[in-house]
Amino acid sequence: MQDCPLTLDRIFTHAARWHGEREIVTRTAEGLVERTTYAAAQARAKQASNALRAEGIRPGDRVATLGWNGARHLEVWYGAIGIGAVLHTLNPRLFPEQIAYIINHAEDRIILADMQCKPLLDSLLPQCPTVEKVIWLTDAGAANYEDWIAPHGHDCAWGGFEENTAAGLCYTSGTTGNPKGVLYSHRSNYLHALMTLQADALALSARDTVLLVVPMYHANAWGVVYSAPAVGAKLVLPGPKLDGASIHELIETEGVTYSAAVPTVWQMLLTHLKETNGALGKLNRVTIGGSACPESIIRTFHDDYGVDVIQGWGMTETSPLATVSVPTPELAELPFDAQVPYKLKQGRLLCNLDLKLTDDAGRRLPHDGKTFGRLKIKGATIAAAYFKNEGGDVLDEEGFFDTGDVSTIDERGYMQITDRAKDVIKSGGEWISSIDVENIAVGHPKAQLCAVIGVVHPKWDERPVLLVQLKPGVSAEKQEFVEYLDGKIAKWWMPDDVIFVDEIPLGATGKIDKKLIRQRMTDYALPFDGASR
Amino acid sequence: MQDCPLTLDRIFTHAARWHGEREIVTRTAEGLVERTTYAAAQARAKQASNALRAEGIRPGDRVATLGWNGARHLEVWYGAIGIGAVLHTLNPRLFPEQIAYIINHAEDRIILADMQCKPLLDSLLPQCPTVEKVIWLTDAGAANYEDWIAPHGHDCAWGGFEENTAAGLCYTSGTTGNPKGVLYSHRSNYLHALMTLQADALALSARDTVLLVVPMYHANAWGVVYSAPAVGAKLVLPGPKLDGASIHELIETEGVTYSAAVPTVWQMLLTHLKETNGALGKLNRVTIGGSACPESIIRTFHDDYGVDVIQGWGMTETSPLATVSVPTPELAELPFDAQVPYKLKQGRLLCNLDLKLTDDAGRRLPHDGKTFGRLKIKGATIAAAYFKNEGGDVLDEEGFFDTGDVSTIDERGYMQITDRAKDVIKSGGEWISSIDVENIAVGHPKAQLCAVIGVVHPKWDERPVLLVQLKPGVSAEKQEFVEYLDGKIAKWWMPDDVIFVDEIPLGATGKIDKKLIRQRMTDYALPFDGASR
Repeated sequence: MQDCPLTLDRIFTHAARWHGEREIVTRTAEGLVERTTYAAAQARAKQASNALRAEGIRPGDRVATLGWNGARHLEVWYGAIGIGAVLHTLNPRLFPEQIAYIINHAEDRIILADMQCKPLLDSLLPQCPTVEKVIWLTDAGAANYEDWIAPHGHDCAWGGFEENTAAGLCYTSGTTGNPKGVLYSHRSNYLHALMTLQADALALSARDTVLLVVPMYHANAWGVVYSAPAVGAKLVLPGPKLDGASIHELIETEGVTYSAAVPTVWQMLLTHLKETNGALGKLNRVTIGGSACPESIIRTFHDDYGVDVIQGWGMTETSPLATVSVPTPELAELPFDAQVPYKLKQGRLLCNLDLKLTDDAGRRLPHDGKTFGRLKIKGATIAAAYFKNEGGDVLDEEGFFDTGDVSTIDERGYMQITDRAKDVIKSGGEWISSIDVENIAVGHPKAQLCAVIGVVHPKWDERPVLLVQLKPGVSAEKQEFVEYLDGKIAKWWMPDDVIFVDEIPLGATGKIDKKLIRQRMTDYALPFDGASR
Repeated sequence: MQDCPLTLDRIFTHAARWHGEREIVTRTAEGLVERTTYAAAQARAKQASNALRAEGIRPGDRVATLGWNGARHLEVWYGAIGIGAVLHTLNPRLFPEQIAYIINHAEDRIILADMQCKPLLDSLLPQCPTVEKVIWLTDAGAANYEDWIAPHGHDCAWGGFEENTAAGLCYTSGTTGNPKGVLYSHRSNYLHALMTLQADALALSARDTVLLVVPMYHANAWGVVYSAPAVGAKLVLPGPKLDGASIHELIETEGVTYSAAVPTVWQMLLTHLKETNGALGKLNRVTIGGSACPESIIRTFHDDYGVDVIQGWGMTETSPLATVSVPTPELAELPFDAQVPYKLKQGRLLCNLDLKLTDDAGRRLPHDGKTFGRLKIKGATIAAAYFKNEGGDVLDEEGFFDTGDVSTIDERGYMQITDRAKDVIKSGGEWISSIDVENIAVGHPKAQLCAVIGVVHPKWDERPVLLVQLKPGVSAEKQEFVEYLDGKIAKWWMPDDVIFVDEIPLGATGKIDKKLIRQRMTDYALPFDGASR
């Protein structure tokens, strides 16, 4: 058979040739709606390739972007990878010192950034000696993108390198140590696009209009940067404004049929719809990932708007999509209420991947929906190591990558994340899911936020402690939370203590910062009569 | 990223692990309905691997099958490719001398055959010295499959070779010269499965029940041998009986949602449904390929049964699927009648492939829906050469494979086959589609079959001549056909002669055998006053 390497430039070229008139719509940071097409964007991406070459960018060099979802960002993306450079997405939501660390570690030579990131970038650049130039993804002012590409032609030979060539670099801000980079290859991202386009995954088609809410700096926007052009779906790129009203307007005016985002974005949208009595036009399905999806979002989308919620799971190291919660034929025939418990799980494994649960010693655990263990994954779209081999060998003896998550897999193959491995509480040889207890405790009417962490215990190794941030102006007794949890969790899962705190700290991605909580709790000792087990 | 070769054994292993209880249903040649599951079939496929090894089969050896669609056939298939052997499907519908040629050319060492093929195979084997053994895909009698695998265990390590290893061999019975083999790699078939699973292709899901009518000896059953297990779709394998009543029964009793077959099968089914007032249960879509689909089939499926017909195009050399006629968003919004002209075309190109139209000199022709030219295709699922390099170099200087078809591509990207390159009539520097003229002429109420061929002309190079096989007991004048065609085709397309023949010969695949017609017409000369141009 023919030797055709799976290089990602082919995807954008295919879109330009066979879906050339299909639109890419951008709402800029300034609020303008700009329109281009795959054919025009590909021609401009080739100008960007020539501009990068003129800057001395060579295959393997890192070209960084710092900004929101928009057509110029997409053009630079393909412009860089088309000539064998590595497109490195910087996350503007990280702490400045993390961004500086990442730029230096990646040795980025050029950064293409949204103007809104200028104050941030100006403050960082003195610490980033590898950066030779910054181009602003706008059409006016000094060093703007339009002036930068204008002198260059549309002719540029893309590809011609082998498929294992690096294409993308994305850092994961681990909760321990420095951020670590995942270096995607053309092959791995191409295969990820093919896998996720299946009917049982994202199921994108040329008839879809895709609102890409998930940022391009989050693991290739869940691969949609590749999968949407591959099938010629219309792309709507919302820029920085992700509030309910802004998202709603794009869904209705652009005829969006499909979207992908984290739960908080959907929560804002649904709140806005309720307040404004709004509707969702042609939207028929959304993929939700990034963190567990609350049941209320699934039910509201279904009951009030006829929109199907499909939960997906993955991480930067898994390209990212690995499991998707689509129904089996047996589940599809059940009433919606009976399907919801499965929609709340992170779903079933995509073809081309392998998954296992193990205990701490690496022994495989049963797929019974109850036993939870370390979740490990293998496949052509899974990281084999971090960039520059940070962290050393990350695969087990069977070649599986340890996700750092703890999960169950049920008899039907549905995986459910129960905790992070570092947060799970190991008590008397058994594991307690900190997240399960938190999710129940936060249902207490006085609770604003709850966190559960394990503290050292002389007999049981660890015991859970519940931290509660009460709603403003409210007071409560410990016993109220103990009574609330009683009967909702196993007796031996009951926290040994309840601590009221002024603030439960959140990290840069909006998740509870348990590392910081543990630091603050260093001097804490369990009450003498703890040990309820 | 991880190094995970795309070897096809992973697909069946994935099906066994993650869709293990999903059924594979077979109707045997004896008419029995037998049931197994992906988990059980994979375990038995490993027994088959061990049995093949015990016969001395080594990586690269050809293992042939000769039979209908059934679970044992599927087990041998994966059993062979799992250990790096090459699964070679023999087509029992070919002429015996062709089959013998193919066996010898492929150097098949072992043949697994249905009992119904015993008389055929017994007559051939004396001419086939490479064949050491024949196993019958049944459970009784000498050398039966069940006895053959029974002594062997379920443990067998599959894979472990690189993805460019040969997996399958399928011969195409060209109309000129000997049959030529296409040798598929694990990689090419794996990528084909991923491509065809997209929403804009076959769109198979775990919720589908697939009735696989297209034979496994036709280019991997259009890849469904791989794509259905990849997503865990229930498989229904109909054995040799493909008449309307047999197909209808399986569709209803097994809850078939999707099927794939050539138009003649669907014509038989629709005739049967009309006669019996039957319905189609859960069937919601069918893929039709192999030859152009008559409009009546598309309309009847849609109007009477609510079934969507999706035309696909490909050939043995293209794995096979390359284009699929799914609607663009603009077409999807039109009334059904306005969509039909596009449903009659062979469709739009799958991602990961490239296509061009050229004239005889290799110059690219426009995609205007009118200009027709040689159809050439490129991609990782397209043949680069024939087995043992028969026919020499088959790619042009840009690496495209010449399909031997002549087609148009319209502004929306829909490709339509207008003729075979060797049948198109080259008259005065322009091309006349023999098939277009035939399709119109056969609409004459007195015509049973029509064929149009080009005959040498001193001034125009070639001119068309129409051969007509009249309906039984009917007589006609040449002028009746000239008048019938007048106004329906361009004036210069009008055949210079009409010849009534007793029989228009059909080839082994049911298509008009123009090669034989041309042989029979060797002594024919155009009438003196021909040349209507």
